[in-house]
Amino acid sequence: MTAAVLCIGTELTRGELVNTNGPWIAARLTELGFEVVRTETVPDDEGEIVAALHRLAARARVLVCTGGLGPTSDDLTAAAAAAAMGVSLVCDEASLDAIRRRFERAGREMSPSNAKQADLPDGAQALPNAAGTAPGFAAFIGDCRAYFTPGVPRELEHLWEAHIAPRLQSVAVITSHQVRLRTFGMPESVVGEKLAGLEEQSAGLRLGYRATFPEVEVKVHVSAASQADARQLAFVAAEEVRARLGACVYGEGGDTFPVAVGRALRSRGWRLAVAESCTGGLIGHLMTRAPASDFFVGGAIVYANSAKTRILGVNEETLRAHGAVSGEVARAMAEGIRRASGAEIALAVTGIAGPTGGTPEKPVGLVHWAVSHPGGTTVKSRVLSGDRGQIQRLAAYIGLSLVRELAMEERSSSLLRVATSG
Amino acid sequence: MTAAVLCIGTELTRGELVNTNGPWIAARLTELGFEVVRTETVPDDEGEIVAALHRLAARARVLVCTGGLGPTSDDLTAAAAAAAMGVSLVCDEASLDAIRRRFERAGREMSPSNAKQADLPDGAQALPNAAGTAPGFAAFIGDCRAYFTPGVPRELEHLWEAHIAPRLQSVAVITSHQVRLRTFGMPESVVGEKLAGLEEQSAGLRLGYRATFPEVEVKVHVSAASQADARQLAFVAAEEVRARLGACVYGEGGDTFPVAVGRALRSRGWRLAVAESCTGGLIGHLMTRAPASDFFVGGAIVYANSAKTRILGVNEETLRAHGAVSGEVARAMAEGIRRASGAEIALAVTGIAGPTGGTPEKPVGLVHWAVSHPGGTTVKSRVLSGDRGQIQRLAAYIGLSLVRELAMEERSSSLLRVATSG
Repeated sequence: MTAAVLCIGTELTRGELVNTNGPWIAARLTELGFEVVRTETVPDDEGEIVAALHRLAARARVLVCTGGLGPTSDDLTAAAAAAAMGVSLVCDEASLDAIRRRFERAGREMSPSNAKQADLPDGAQALPNAAGTAPGFAAFIGDCRAYFTPGVPRELEHLWEAHIAPRLQSVAVITSHQVRLRTFGMPESVVGEKLAGLEEQSAGLRLGYRATFPEVEVKVHVSAASQADARQLAFVAAEEVRARLGACVYGEGGDTFPVAVGRALRSRGWRLAVAESCTGGLIGHLMTRAPASDFFVGGAIVYANSAKTRILGVNEETLRAHGAVSGEVARAMAEGIRRASGAEIALAVTGIAGPTGGTPEKPVGLVHWAVSHPGGTTVKSRVLSGDRGQIQRLAAYIGLSLVRELAMEERSSSLLRVATSG
Repeated sequence: MTAAVLCIGTELTRGELVNTNGPWIAARLTELGFEVVRTETVPDDEGEIVAALHRLAARARVLVCTGGLGPTSDDLTAAAAAAAMGVSLVCDEASLDAIRRRFERAGREMSPSNAKQADLPDGAQALPNAAGTAPGFAAFIGDCRAYFTPGVPRELEHLWEAHIAPRLQSVAVITSHQVRLRTFGMPESVVGEKLAGLEEQSAGLRLGYRATFPEVEVKVHVSAASQADARQLAFVAAEEVRARLGACVYGEGGDTFPVAVGRALRSRGWRLAVAESCTGGLIGHLMTRAPASDFFVGGAIVYANSAKTRILGVNEETLRAHGAVSGEVARAMAEGIRRASGAEIALAVTGIAGPTGGTPEKPVGLVHWAVSHPGGTTVKSRVLSGDRGQIQRLAAYIGLSLVRELAMEERSSSLLRVATSG
């Protein structure tokens, strides 16, 4: 069951506004089981809108259009819809009454340009808008069911819930299901290779990948004879993906990596403290984006060397002998903040995030991690590639993955083995 | 001069991701003087991509495509471009070499799926990608100049700046100029009111606004008879905007707020330390996104109360008497970290970021800031609105703006006056 989305507005084609309506509608249509085959954005130009309506109505069974129903001269969607349907605009009396009452309630006078908003294509069905002035409308363009809403997100959402979704539910036959698995620890290409051949094992299974540095999301999408079948097959396929990717899969759906780290800490009864040099506070920020009081204590940002000695008590001799970016200093930072904070586990990161400051012996991207915990202190180092922001982000994630693995230690994992041998 | 944008990715048509690339490209094309007549989004489906390429190439002189150049099986853009051009894919040796060298530098092995990324349509011109693995490419589809880039925003932006914009500049006839002024401290509606009437004063002047929480960017766009004229008129108009908005304008173009704070600190010869409770490390993170050694020392993340006493030495009696979210504790935090770190100026933030933890006396959003500096300690409090992420972000920005104003103190400003009276 195909669907398409049309967003109308010159502010969108000029890129002055990020289009959140398009993705919102597409996500709702996908949830209902539609396959969104295209979304288009066109300017407030009647010819362009009419052409887009014809194009999309010929391609999809359902079309949702948003924008261009306002009161000003550049709002041309109703006229364009009428032209695409080959009818004229006529005043919808019920809608005009609703607009008039709305202005009366607000104690304002209805202007002619507001009255214009009740003009709908002849034969269209008005969709009353309790959240704004302009009614939406439903109409057939050829064989395609088309729905029109204002571009104000609140009004769009109201019309969707009140009128469009209920109508579409009787049209859609949902026979697909999607599971999103969230991973960290393998590049997208390696994830893809580990899952090679899986799609061929199950008819209707499609894998999708989305890299959001440094994470990779794997989407397990299954179409089947019924939604129950699709759900069951998606569950089985997701289990196979988990088996192939191992500990890299940290969560599902809207889960985030720091929340997964917090979950591991909470189940172990550990609280985390951090000592951050090159990450400058990023690890603390990641850990506190969601409430974290029961597993995150805080820590120290020891960006300058003076902070390492003054705030954390790192020995000046250690700093001189090994340099700030060294396993020894990472160890001293982790042990120092664990002692100072009283936390059960402490993570320290020191490195060269660049773009300058590298030397042949200690290049940009060199990072040392240390994790001090009840069983001792684990130290690891690696040279990361990327720009400053990527090195910082990856350094934070790798550090947190060490913490997560240690907190879950009974499930001994490859990540931990890499970590302790690093 | 017409242009179109094509965004490729099933995650976009399914609405799993808000498409920021499309508006970004559209805005850049508009800046260059192109009229963007359409943007389309299609799924990772070769047939759909080929059809869209034909459709858009027939409609616009220039086409920019993004997405679908990754290493996995759902990345089909290069194959679709070849099909639309009626040619086959061939390995581009220079691109393959670049990918191989990239992996060598990272000490990783190049997988066959990464090698695939060097396969480009026969006759296309590779656009080397210093920011990632996949090269972009330029090609003609019929008479339309088409440019292809990966969907990773950083890579898109790199390829745009390095290759696409320079090529388009010779195609476009540019008679406009835009200055982007970056502001923090006024809501978008107030910025708009302060600039009311300005557009009418100068023919060809258009103001645009873009709110990126908590900042507001003001775009001063001028079209004139020549680009030199446009540049001069935009400069004059930008000066008027600066005069009307005052100290809220902290920079221009790609400037960032933390960099502006660093500039003020550096010119004063001050180094900053931070003590973060509800912001959890965000201020340190913002200050260290760019190299900051000459004005940022570090500090403490004192998320838990135990961290406030153990790491910063905040008096337990002060905590008990006033609560962790109080001006007294903010003051103790700022003075504590200033003493501990030896920094000239120290910023402390404590508050209730929510979503839970509020009380009638201390609601969610209540934040206390303290700045300790050679002239004494300034304390301020406010109740912020928004979700947890917005409260944290706004708390960080307001704290940094207090630091910036104090560092620039000779230019006495309204912000500082608000601050000390708060």
